[in-house]
Amino acid sequence: MNAYAALEQKFARIACLNEASSMLGWDASAMMPEGGAEARGEQLATLAGLAHEFLSAPDIGEALAAARPETDWQEANVGLMREAHIRATALPRELVEASVRAGRACESIWRQARKDGDFAAVRVALGEVVALTRESAGILGKALDLAPYDALMSQYQRGITAADAEAIFTRYEGFLKDALPRAEALQAARTKEELPPGPYPEAVQEALARKLAAAAGLKFSSARLDRSAHPFCGGTPTDIRITTRYDEADFASALMGVLHETGHALYEQNLPAAFRRQPVGEAAGMAVHESQSLIVEMQAVRSDAFLGHLAPLLTEAFGKTITLGGLKNRLRRVQRSFIRVEADEMTYPAHVLLRFRLEQALLSGDLAVADLPGAWNDGLHSLLGITPPDDRQGCLQDIHWYDGAIGYFPSYTLGAMAAAQLMAAARRALPDLDDGFARGDFSGLSGWLARHVHGLGSSLGYNEILAAATGEALNPAHFEAHLTARYLT
Amino acid sequence: MNAYAALEQKFARIACLNEASSMLGWDASAMMPEGGAEARGEQLATLAGLAHEFLSAPDIGEALAAARPETDWQEANVGLMREAHIRATALPRELVEASVRAGRACESIWRQARKDGDFAAVRVALGEVVALTRESAGILGKALDLAPYDALMSQYQRGITAADAEAIFTRYEGFLKDALPRAEALQAARTKEELPPGPYPEAVQEALARKLAAAAGLKFSSARLDRSAHPFCGGTPTDIRITTRYDEADFASALMGVLHETGHALYEQNLPAAFRRQPVGEAAGMAVHESQSLIVEMQAVRSDAFLGHLAPLLTEAFGKTITLGGLKNRLRRVQRSFIRVEADEMTYPAHVLLRFRLEQALLSGDLAVADLPGAWNDGLHSLLGITPPDDRQGCLQDIHWYDGAIGYFPSYTLGAMAAAQLMAAARRALPDLDDGFARGDFSGLSGWLARHVHGLGSSLGYNEILAAATGEALNPAHFEAHLTARYLT
Repeated sequence: MNAYAALEQKFARIACLNEASSMLGWDASAMMPEGGAEARGEQLATLAGLAHEFLSAPDIGEALAAARPETDWQEANVGLMREAHIRATALPRELVEASVRAGRACESIWRQARKDGDFAAVRVALGEVVALTRESAGILGKALDLAPYDALMSQYQRGITAADAEAIFTRYEGFLKDALPRAEALQAARTKEELPPGPYPEAVQEALARKLAAAAGLKFSSARLDRSAHPFCGGTPTDIRITTRYDEADFASALMGVLHETGHALYEQNLPAAFRRQPVGEAAGMAVHESQSLIVEMQAVRSDAFLGHLAPLLTEAFGKTITLGGLKNRLRRVQRSFIRVEADEMTYPAHVLLRFRLEQALLSGDLAVADLPGAWNDGLHSLLGITPPDDRQGCLQDIHWYDGAIGYFPSYTLGAMAAAQLMAAARRALPDLDDGFARGDFSGLSGWLARHVHGLGSSLGYNEILAAATGEALNPAHFEAHLTARYLT
Repeated sequence: MNAYAALEQKFARIACLNEASSMLGWDASAMMPEGGAEARGEQLATLAGLAHEFLSAPDIGEALAAARPETDWQEANVGLMREAHIRATALPRELVEASVRAGRACESIWRQARKDGDFAAVRVALGEVVALTRESAGILGKALDLAPYDALMSQYQRGITAADAEAIFTRYEGFLKDALPRAEALQAARTKEELPPGPYPEAVQEALARKLAAAAGLKFSSARLDRSAHPFCGGTPTDIRITTRYDEADFASALMGVLHETGHALYEQNLPAAFRRQPVGEAAGMAVHESQSLIVEMQAVRSDAFLGHLAPLLTEAFGKTITLGGLKNRLRRVQRSFIRVEADEMTYPAHVLLRFRLEQALLSGDLAVADLPGAWNDGLHSLLGITPPDDRQGCLQDIHWYDGAIGYFPSYTLGAMAAAQLMAAARRALPDLDDGFARGDFSGLSGWLARHVHGLGSSLGYNEILAAATGEALNPAHFEAHLTARYLT
């Protein structure tokens, strides 16, 4: 066996372990009785430990040095293998273990601190997490020839730097200053159409969610939909597991949630089968993944065309009159708010921008951990003109940072902007796309995405995928045009 | 770390991989969409391959040589580790691979051959399986200092030999000759009380099954009940997964099935936690496991006392009159039949005895594979006085043998007989046991089993467990007394 083929085999074994972990993770959230938690933790730790052991083993380094890839895809695959091997070996074991311990300890303290709105309680623990992350970022950056923050950011999304993102965010900041008050004024001037009060029976919601997910392209012969406290998309490309939660007072949360996860699922389903279990055959990163959930949930499903199709479907399913106006009011409202996960699509990037800047400042040391609450409140006020009444609704609201995840937040907005740009390109390529949405037919969009995004796997990075699919790297004008069309006309 | 502690750590890692496999196996049967089958096969093969690799690694051999166990349990643990290591290393890799291939090929041919009732079609493939199994049994026997068939039998159940079992089966054969016609005559003389026709709604069956399983001791905080084509008990001690299937025409099959699996589950739930993930902390073998499912399903649930409690419960749940007589007629009838899995408890051992003798003859070469159908039919006729009309209802009925499992069948009857003996001992120790059953209270029995069987793990073998719990090695008189009391009075 030549060195390249041996590498493929080694990475396929690692991928099998990760697939097992993914299924067991799904089970832990959707099926497992509480008594199983401790044993599951051990099982997952064993699988993750083995995957890391194999990935960092010297035989991988030797095979990487000897491998002679013969195609562009093989070349890209080897590049990704090399990066993964470097990431797995660059950090001293003591630093990795200290980071895991610090993240766990801080997360645990944060849970109580958030309840109490007491940032001081978690300050020292967060300082420890930040210090260790800074050390890791420096080492990884050297090994990968990246700036420290980029070394963190690129583990979530390759192919775009913090400098690229900063330019995009700065432009958005200017757009928002003008657009938000105008959108609010237009919204206030319109009659507010309400949806009829619930209950919206869970079983009806679920049947409808299944029907719409299937219409959007989810193959239930290779997928399941179940319940969990926090919705997610897991599993493997031929065995996708999506979850949601139901609220009988509000059908929209589960329905939009399922369609969001369906977007993620379509990506996984359509990854290049020839490179299954290879790094180059995986999804291209968190931002591209989020673009796929948002192009379904935000771009297609919330389009005028599809909402016009959806309203009578909902009316029939629930036996209550759901008007198009009521749906639009529920699904397309701007609202300045403190909590990121509740934000609308126009203000959401402001929450991300705030965190993006703060986490870079924390990492560089320009911002002391003790000064985070003040910097947070000032930042949010500068962006949205509102100030959180307490840290619970401020810098304590998200688990990220406290669990050690730094560099992850930008993916949300890079995803939303990519979704708008991809949708604009799909509409140019397929002029009757919205006619399809008006009939509940997503096949035009899903086929286009399968060809231009899903099928590329990780062969390209973020901006390269956008360039290949749309003719240009990320251009925030498309996101602005989308928001303008939806909220400012 | 001393050598013994290192061994414990190595075996715990192997056990974690096996736990992951067990959960993924449950998922494949109870949850997985069909599209996931191929990927799941790869995941399971990877996990099994790693477990085997770790178990057979030289460092285990070295640690076994150096280990100085300090307690009886540690001593027993090391003994089981040594046996597992020998089993994992004794066979040449080529022979293992050839056996796996032969078993898979034969099983696949058997599926069609059974449909067609065409033994000739699978004869050559079965011959290959038998020849390879003979070779393996010879090598394992030498390595473990056991007779070849005992080397196979002991991988399913330690602590009893084929010679012990033969004596027991011969005695049963004599008992059956006399008892079966008498039981049939008594049964024919009684009025046959029928249960009311269905439907028995699945949801009601399931609710009742859950209630009764919980009453029998199943902790649903550490267990699930789901559906699968073939009922089983899987999972791990703190996260048990039992399954059943429902037939709306007949509530008894699912209900008895769930209570059978509950017996298995109680055993797993009550294994010694101090030796979790160690060989000595596992269940003692297939026969002891089967004794635990049967002591619940056959001994306790089908007792006069419990059926008297169950009849009004069923009547209330289904809104149909279920009489005690109807229940007894459904759950306690003898019937000569061709198919093992449909057999009653009096004739079931005859099916096992037949296979036990035939598989030994195949393995030794005394019986040629080509002569199996005739030997089967003669054997069944000699035991039960009936002859299968075709091989589909004869030697083609079971997957075992064709998939390479030889030495497994005796466990069923060794389990049934142990269940009768354990129940007799529990009744001696707890004179009010049946008063509890009459109230639907299994706590006396489950507590006694936890102390005398479950908590012992694999520290003792089959006959040793019986001796410790009941004062004697297996004595078939208890099974005969049970059948006599239930069917001959």
